[in-house]
Amino acid sequence: MDNSSSNGHVNGDHRWSETAGKVITCKAAVAPGPGQPIVVEEILVDPPKSMEVRIKILYTSICHTDLSAWLGENPAQSIYPRVLGHEAVGVVESVGEGVTDLSPGDHVVPIFNGECGDCAYCDSDKTNLCGKYRVNPFKFVMSGDGATRFHTKDGNQPIYHFLNTSTFSEYTVMDSGCAVKIPPGAPLKQMTLLSCGVSTGLGAVWNTANVQAGATVAVFGLGAVGLAAVEGARARGASRIIGVDVNPQKSIKGKAIGITDFINPKDHKKPVHEVIREMTGGGVDYSFECAGNVDVLREAFLSTHDGWGFTVVLGIHPSPRMMPLHPMELFDGRRIVGCVFGDFKGKSQLPAFAKKCVAGVSSLVPFIFIFPSHFNNLFLV
Amino acid sequence: MDNSSSNGHVNGDHRWSETAGKVITCKAAVAPGPGQPIVVEEILVDPPKSMEVRIKILYTSICHTDLSAWLGENPAQSIYPRVLGHEAVGVVESVGEGVTDLSPGDHVVPIFNGECGDCAYCDSDKTNLCGKYRVNPFKFVMSGDGATRFHTKDGNQPIYHFLNTSTFSEYTVMDSGCAVKIPPGAPLKQMTLLSCGVSTGLGAVWNTANVQAGATVAVFGLGAVGLAAVEGARARGASRIIGVDVNPQKSIKGKAIGITDFINPKDHKKPVHEVIREMTGGGVDYSFECAGNVDVLREAFLSTHDGWGFTVVLGIHPSPRMMPLHPMELFDGRRIVGCVFGDFKGKSQLPAFAKKCVAGVSSLVPFIFIFPSHFNNLFLV
Repeated sequence: MDNSSSNGHVNGDHRWSETAGKVITCKAAVAPGPGQPIVVEEILVDPPKSMEVRIKILYTSICHTDLSAWLGENPAQSIYPRVLGHEAVGVVESVGEGVTDLSPGDHVVPIFNGECGDCAYCDSDKTNLCGKYRVNPFKFVMSGDGATRFHTKDGNQPIYHFLNTSTFSEYTVMDSGCAVKIPPGAPLKQMTLLSCGVSTGLGAVWNTANVQAGATVAVFGLGAVGLAAVEGARARGASRIIGVDVNPQKSIKGKAIGITDFINPKDHKKPVHEVIREMTGGGVDYSFECAGNVDVLREAFLSTHDGWGFTVVLGIHPSPRMMPLHPMELFDGRRIVGCVFGDFKGKSQLPAFAKKCVAGVSSLVPFIFIFPSHFNNLFLV
Repeated sequence: MDNSSSNGHVNGDHRWSETAGKVITCKAAVAPGPGQPIVVEEILVDPPKSMEVRIKILYTSICHTDLSAWLGENPAQSIYPRVLGHEAVGVVESVGEGVTDLSPGDHVVPIFNGECGDCAYCDSDKTNLCGKYRVNPFKFVMSGDGATRFHTKDGNQPIYHFLNTSTFSEYTVMDSGCAVKIPPGAPLKQMTLLSCGVSTGLGAVWNTANVQAGATVAVFGLGAVGLAAVEGARARGASRIIGVDVNPQKSIKGKAIGITDFINPKDHKKPVHEVIREMTGGGVDYSFECAGNVDVLREAFLSTHDGWGFTVVLGIHPSPRMMPLHPMELFDGRRIVGCVFGDFKGKSQLPAFAKKCVAGVSSLVPFIFIFPSHFNNLFLV
């Protein structure tokens, strides 16, 4: 969704100061119910309250998590009407009381996994889960007062928030701990990717696994997150990057980004982990599970080398099935961990990551225009 | 089992050099079949072959793993007759061709998880699993030639080996990579504990988890390994050490060693992890699963603090049940890993650990005389 042509304003040519403190009427893509076509309609967006910011969204992209929420796959997380969307770039329109690190006009990237900066979690160097603003699919309202900042145009009905961000709107309100200032001159369209998929995939490789040059890597599931893990491994100088996907088309994009080998499990009679162990003399050093399937998770785990294999789980697993791993299998020295938002602490670490992307350490260009066909029926404009 | 009174010799007062190269006739405690009372009988012990050592056992202790093997709990690991035992201290009687780091007269501790020193695993700083001599419950013979060094007294029947060590014998043969020289003057009786339980428990705390002063810890299962974990946490200055066991008697030994709190799950209606979270403001920093039960494993995992909780699995899990953990639970920042032999590289790191014990950094004394009643029927002498 490209909102940049409106020059950062709605309702005429107000300066930022003229909309500050007022309710804004703007367009938003509202999900009216589970699986029901999203409707672009005018809504009301309240001014930001204490420690909140109101942001004009310039670009937003779509992630599979938006699709899952739209479909209402998890009833406990389903509430409508709702403004979905969590990958975006925008410009600060106004800030609420107490916000000192952001000002109107700043370019920002929303993050669904925020950082308040002063809780026990933010103080710890072992986690990027904030006590206040961590990713929470069960949260539908603002942290400050438990209310929404979105309403229907007649003002009668609240419209709910999503993943701390709700970016499918020309204007949105979020906690300032969920908006990250990006470097001046950064290519805005590409920066949306830092909100979720690319940060998650690259961060899993750089932060969680800390893959080093020469390492061998397998990536299971070559969607946006998986391809970002491939890019992270390429940038780190991995000697071998094996992409695994049941869709043969994924080998093309995968090879363009950096995979050295492609495995389609359908082409093999034996389990993929056996194929990988034979290819690599015992298994890869690192594997990344980006498919959200517990059987794939087991293959990813077993595809690593005993003694030092390290598997990072990035995929969202909607099934209630437990991990099919036996405790004695942990004694072979393989480790498996989860990773949220690439283990980046968003507010404090994403700006440096953005600079690396701008400097070309990793290219974001290949990730633009990834638009799976199953999203085509999401919007009814 | 105390064999020290025989002054390091059998068949009279031979010097070491006089038995070298010859078959030794000595007593051993032989397991004749699954669950059948162990018989102390005379057996033949071959001289060590290339890169092997023959050791006179001075002291040996009993671990639950011996009991499991004796009972034949896992049919695929069962073979008889067999010399069990893997916790011991001994003196080198003779060495095979190529052994340069050990000499007759050296005091040694056998280790079931050896270290050859020149494989890819031994070269890696990420694992203590040796490519040649790692713990292997399916191994019944010597690595070098696939034969046994034990035979019945008539020489007609092989007697099988156990866990690289087979210490329930006056003399045993093992790969030199499985015998660790201990510091001169170390209290021999206590050193048997370094062969397994104490190294496993303390090492899990010191090496695997690297518990720091002030940390909070929960230990599930207060057997020898669990108590060693308690001792490790105490030595590191943990601020709180919660012991969990269904046997109320364990609180006495646990408190003598260092637990600050004892929880008997039977005393609570709510799950133990909830009790621990309430006691600790959200969960402990580290938990250690020393019970070998997957339901306990889940409680241990959930008893840690989200964001940074770290669970080490030490227990042997004979049940085929998988770990009852959902992949999405990994996204709360809790980690769970396995640990073999306390992540010590035996040959290179155990001598320094032994010195620390001798120096009093950790006391081994409380671990002597732990002799559960269920072992009483093991021996028929």
